[in-house]
Amino acid sequence: MTTPIAVVVLAAGAGTRMKSTLPKVLHPLAGWPMVRHVLDNVGRLRPGRIVGVIAPGADAVAAAFAPHPAVVQKRPLGTGDAAKAALGALKGHRGPVLVVFGDAPLVTAESMRRLVAACRRSRAAVGVLGFKARDPSPYGRLIVHGGVLEKIVESKDANAVEKAVDFCNSGVMCIDGALIGGLLRAIRNNNAKREFYLTDAVALARAAGHRTIAVEGDEEEFQGINSRAELAVGERALQRRLRAAAMAAGVTMTDPDTVWLAADTRLSPDVSIGPCVRFGPGVSVASGVQIKAFCDIEGARIGRGALIGPFARIRPGSDVGEEVHIGNFVELKATRMARGAKANHLAYLGDSAIGQRSNIGAGTIAVNYDGYGKHRTVIGADAFVGSNSSLVAPVRVGRGANVTAGSVITEDVPDGAMAFGRARQVTKKGRATALRAKLKERAAAAKQAKKK
Amino acid sequence: MTTPIAVVVLAAGAGTRMKSTLPKVLHPLAGWPMVRHVLDNVGRLRPGRIVGVIAPGADAVAAAFAPHPAVVQKRPLGTGDAAKAALGALKGHRGPVLVVFGDAPLVTAESMRRLVAACRRSRAAVGVLGFKARDPSPYGRLIVHGGVLEKIVESKDANAVEKAVDFCNSGVMCIDGALIGGLLRAIRNNNAKREFYLTDAVALARAAGHRTIAVEGDEEEFQGINSRAELAVGERALQRRLRAAAMAAGVTMTDPDTVWLAADTRLSPDVSIGPCVRFGPGVSVASGVQIKAFCDIEGARIGRGALIGPFARIRPGSDVGEEVHIGNFVELKATRMARGAKANHLAYLGDSAIGQRSNIGAGTIAVNYDGYGKHRTVIGADAFVGSNSSLVAPVRVGRGANVTAGSVITEDVPDGAMAFGRARQVTKKGRATALRAKLKERAAAAKQAKKK
Amino acid sequence: MTTPIAVVVLAAGAGTRMKSTLPKVLHPLAGWPMVRHVLDNVGRLRPGRIVGVIAPGADAVAAAFAPHPAVVQKRPLGTGDAAKAALGALKGHRGPVLVVFGDAPLVTAESMRRLVAACRRSRAAVGVLGFKARDPSPYGRLIVHGGVLEKIVESKDANAVEKAVDFCNSGVMCIDGALIGGLLRAIRNNNAKREFYLTDAVALARAAGHRTIAVEGDEEEFQGINSRAELAVGERALQRRLRAAAMAAGVTMTDPDTVWLAADTRLSPDVSIGPCVRFGPGVSVASGVQIKAFCDIEGARIGRGALIGPFARIRPGSDVGEEVHIGNFVELKATRMARGAKANHLAYLGDSAIGQRSNIGAGTIAVNYDGYGKHRTVIGADAFVGSNSSLVAPVRVGRGANVTAGSVITEDVPDGAMAFGRARQVTKKGRATALRAKLKERAAAAKQAKKK
Repeated sequence: MTTPIAVVVLAAGAGTRMKSTLPKVLHPLAGWPMVRHVLDNVGRLRPGRIVGVIAPGADAVAAAFAPHPAVVQKRPLGTGDAAKAALGALKGHRGPVLVVFGDAPLVTAESMRRLVAACRRSRAAVGVLGFKARDPSPYGRLIVHGGVLEKIVESKDANAVEKAVDFCNSGVMCIDGALIGGLLRAIRNNNAKREFYLTDAVALARAAGHRTIAVEGDEEEFQGINSRAELAVGERALQRRLRAAAMAAGVTMTDPDTVWLAADTRLSPDVSIGPCVRFGPGVSVASGVQIKAFCDIEGARIGRGALIGPFARIRPGSDVGEEVHIGNFVELKATRMARGAKANHLAYLGDSAIGQRSNIGAGTIAVNYDGYGKHRTVIGADAFVGSNSSLVAPVRVGRGANVTAGSVITEDVPDGAMAFGRARQVTKKGRATALRAKLKERAAAAKQAKKK
Repeated sequence: MTTPIAVVVLAAGAGTRMKSTLPKVLHPLAGWPMVRHVLDNVGRLRPGRIVGVIAPGADAVAAAFAPHPAVVQKRPLGTGDAAKAALGALKGHRGPVLVVFGDAPLVTAESMRRLVAACRRSRAAVGVLGFKARDPSPYGRLIVHGGVLEKIVESKDANAVEKAVDFCNSGVMCIDGALIGGLLRAIRNNNAKREFYLTDAVALARAAGHRTIAVEGDEEEFQGINSRAELAVGERALQRRLRAAAMAAGVTMTDPDTVWLAADTRLSPDVSIGPCVRFGPGVSVASGVQIKAFCDIEGARIGRGALIGPFARIRPGSDVGEEVHIGNFVELKATRMARGAKANHLAYLGDSAIGQRSNIGAGTIAVNYDGYGKHRTVIGADAFVGSNSSLVAPVRVGRGANVTAGSVITEDVPDGAMAFGRARQVTKKGRATALRAKLKERAAAAKQAKKK
Repeated sequence: MTTPIAVVVLAAGAGTRMKSTLPKVLHPLAGWPMVRHVLDNVGRLRPGRIVGVIAPGADAVAAAFAPHPAVVQKRPLGTGDAAKAALGALKGHRGPVLVVFGDAPLVTAESMRRLVAACRRSRAAVGVLGFKARDPSPYGRLIVHGGVLEKIVESKDANAVEKAVDFCNSGVMCIDGALIGGLLRAIRNNNAKREFYLTDAVALARAAGHRTIAVEGDEEEFQGINSRAELAVGERALQRRLRAAAMAAGVTMTDPDTVWLAADTRLSPDVSIGPCVRFGPGVSVASGVQIKAFCDIEGARIGRGALIGPFARIRPGSDVGEEVHIGNFVELKATRMARGAKANHLAYLGDSAIGQRSNIGAGTIAVNYDGYGKHRTVIGADAFVGSNSSLVAPVRVGRGANVTAGSVITEDVPDGAMAFGRARQVTKKGRATALRAKLKERAAAAKQAKKK
């Protein structure tokens, strides 16, 4: 068995181009903070430990690393200095150390795995992930001869021959755990910016007679995120991957460009999704479910054969059973709909449990909030809740019970009972005609008054 | 007059890459099952007969071919075998036979017409639609010399010279009706896959001294659909055509990429459509109609000058008259709104007829379902239905009648009458302050209890 | 100080390819009529005067030019004739005259500024904005030698050498105010179409020994709008600019391709916008606001830290305070929500003012319309309006008052009071079971009747 790797995630960058009070690596992508994607990706390599490097006071970033430790880089003195800050937390580690960036969430586990494997195979001191760039001008170039990474040349320092090289530095590096301390401590800041560059580790390792290599990945993976525009580009790239995987697994999307998935969305075969559907985190959808256009679903389980939308909103804590129908302008929140239950039109069901085959009429509101606390509404199987009813929680409507349309229900309704909570109709002949004349007059008078 | 053509539609493929229980050719595109597009396209050539070839037990596919006959290919022995299965149904037919694929819904009538015309003109035994491929590697190549299609070479069998050819086989073929029986029966399965290839008909016809030709179409047309990803690509291609045609006819789309049309959507000039509007099948929209963002419309007629949305949902069987307003969070189902009627906010109108100029208040629900049957609500002209009313069907509200806000209407309201179905307000001074203190206390106690 | 420029906006074109009853330059783009973008762009050059040239009877176009004058081109005799129509309104003007097209809303102030500056610097009689076209074939070519614009050759008149030129005429021209009268009057219509071409001014100026120049801009700017498809392309180009500017300023957009901005939308840093959000004109959003998916906002101010949507619609005249929550299926119209107020589910609030921290229950309707006039609803701070309530305006709910769920409120509720406007619940045991049997029977009978 090989020694497990350690991973250092550099996440101390200021991110000023984001123009945000939120630390850059916490900006969301596909429903997760950016850095969680990085942690998820490196996690697939089953590292022995993960260490975050964060800026002073970045408690929210430290929390995003938990349960992994996060060490603080005291001053922004460059990537070499940032990596050095992690050395203490790497004490005792012998295997390769993978150094990645918290703002590069698109780097795949597959590419990192290939880098680590190549480093192990060739016993390299330092390995670097590179990519062939369409436009290499902004990147450092990887100068490789005979399988050896000779050096990394910054774009501005490259000579004409080096400028023609299109193999570029991704920033992802794998360093021999036995050498990393010495290499990082040897990096100097004798350059224009007075920064310690992690890339100098290559030349230092070479100078000490060690092997250094480069492994190629795809350009798309190595796009860093430094602005809101790049955040949107990153989101698009992630969505493209998630959508392609879902379609390959047998999901129909009328227009994949308008389906937004979360990184953890689980969709079964023969799920069909209309245009304009957003999934927040924590959703699983069973097979045969049809989600029509304009839905927003988060933190919910949708059972086999359910029919959702259009214009449905399902909020966290909801459990939508098999063959359930949730129609337009319906909101569920922390609500369980048992098999075959229906809420087809304009309703709010919060903190509720609806029994099998029960029908919730249009305009029904589960009145779950009294201004201070939330309360539950429980409806038995085969119940019928009439339209425009208000169910004032805590309240129970029994199995096979009936709530008449327009009722306000404040007391429990027993099984098989019928509850009225509305006034009887009274009809006044000719009164509308009279009222209309009066209102017309009043409106005219108001108009007149306005003119003055 | 020329002999009419016959069309054979091959629809027996397994479609395993779709990962679906639904047969591939029934997957929807622009609101229609895929194969209906093929039938619609070939229908424009006014064929004398159409024959479907389906897999055993594919009753739903057979139903999609009706009233045309569908014959069963007993075992999946290749395209040549599939076409042969149709021979019985072609008995007596003399003219050209067009063989097309049920999973190629983008092939235009225009291209097929050109193929048939070229075959007739040159008295070809076999004609093939080809296309210049950007990347020809996955396709069979059409080897043409001096206007003669010499052969079709499968990609894997092509030599270096043939590999350089970018003129590729679309699969669409036109075969002389007098020769088709002999040609199909002569095809052998002496190949690696032990399949009968329809493409062998070209070599066989040539060997028998007949003329064989190729006609070029556009690559975009010939994309087959074998996976959900290709289904999405096909949908996009169809939508692009439908949107372009609508815009050319004088329809404004703020963002055409987010307007989803059905194959049969009819839009008049000076219709204006906001972003994110989905049309299901069976919609016609008269001139001057404005459909705002986020609407879902299916099976409905929208009259001249109507104002729809945003966030409106109009379901099948609805008839929206001239100058009608349907506003946000409003659902119509099988409902007729006469000229100038309005339902501007949060309402459900099902199985209803609303008279001219009548106003339906916010939150109104037509209570059309009692758990077993559906009933009608009929509202006369110039009526005023107050907000949050429930109209318990079957019920009629007369011309010029008035339903007060918050009423439950269970009995008919005569013309000009005013109906109340609500309780009188009772106000208790200071009671809210007292209640609030109590609720606050209760919420605190509940929190306390939870902690323990 | 330099003499200010004058601007002539040619807007008399028929626009027949739009197939519209609306004049072409009034078709909307990013929430504004097309010509307003042109006026906004030229306005940044702070011209001394702006003159519109319109078709006879185009009063709506004249109104769009107001307060600037619009002169009528009596007959459609070409661009030279159209510009000539503006001469009267230019009387007394000495500086450069910029001639632009009303259907070219993408031309940037920056490009026009460079044209004017170049003309002033080189004392040119005529300057033309040109662009390098990917496909120059549809455009007139600018023939430039030694920094001098020698002539503009129409595409169909170009010889082989000229056809190879990819520097094309944008139509935007800057003419010396002292010479414009003479030049325009000298243009002849001795050509196939019998039209007066403004482009002839170049040759005429050259013939008179004046200097003529060309200045380059970007092709994307010079796309004219002649059809609905081009209108959509123009919209996309404008949206791309607006979105990029918003993101650069610190706005997150999950999917910028599905955020539609108006030309005047003001978004602060750390505003976050989900997919599918449309902004109509007149919106400003303060920092920290989160706008979730599927919202439609127009003519409204959104205060710091507010939470909007998903599925919210905010209409003109609304003022949403700091930390306010507007949830799903909620419509605001001309409504003020004070700091911390909430309306989280299915509600219509029109012509209302909601006090600080007040909570509006699900399904609440402000009944603002009586069929003739609109009335106001005023709710004090810390009030609690129960679900499914109807507030019949004009009405006031006092500070700290409570409206019970399902109430119809027709009279003012004093501070701290509690208002009931609903019936007491009555429950009938076993009645639902009995009713169900009856309804079942009735539905069966109805089905039977239908069959006969």
